[in-house]
Amino acid sequence: MDKTLKVEGMTCGHCVSAVEGSVGSLSGVESVKVNLDQGQVNVSYDTAQVSEEAIKEAIDDQGFDVVS
Amino acid sequence: MDKTLKVEGMTCGHCVSAVEGSVGSLSGVESVKVNLDQGQVNVSYDTAQVSEEAIKEAIDDQGFDVVS
Repeated sequence: MDKTLKVEGMTCGHCVSAVEGSVGSLSGVESVKVNLDQGQVNVSYDTAQVSEEAIKEAIDDQGFDVVS
Repeated sequence: MDKTLKVEGMTCGHCVSAVEGSVGSLSGVESVKVNLDQGQVNVSYDTAQVSEEAIKEAIDDQGFDVVS
């Protein structure tokens, strides 16, 4: 499944690395790409292995707000 | 010696850690504190052990612009 999340608080390359690193390390996540300008995180994942909730939690754990 | 450097490009806690970590690891640096809102880095250091130039270079190496 492909999903675009709206995330607030990402301001720089360190933030991009933090989000891409944490989400990318989840089992079942096939790809993750942050668009810093738009405040978006594009994720492709296997719904049989990982939930949208778990992905949002990983982002939240890095200190960012998942708006939608 | 106490010195306040003006640094551009620091936007978040990751940036603070990057600057404080790199400058703080230099021999002769006694303390380093980033003020994110003001874009300032306050450094106390022993001029016999480390130069202002080396400190600025450490910040620059982390991808930030030392303005003054």
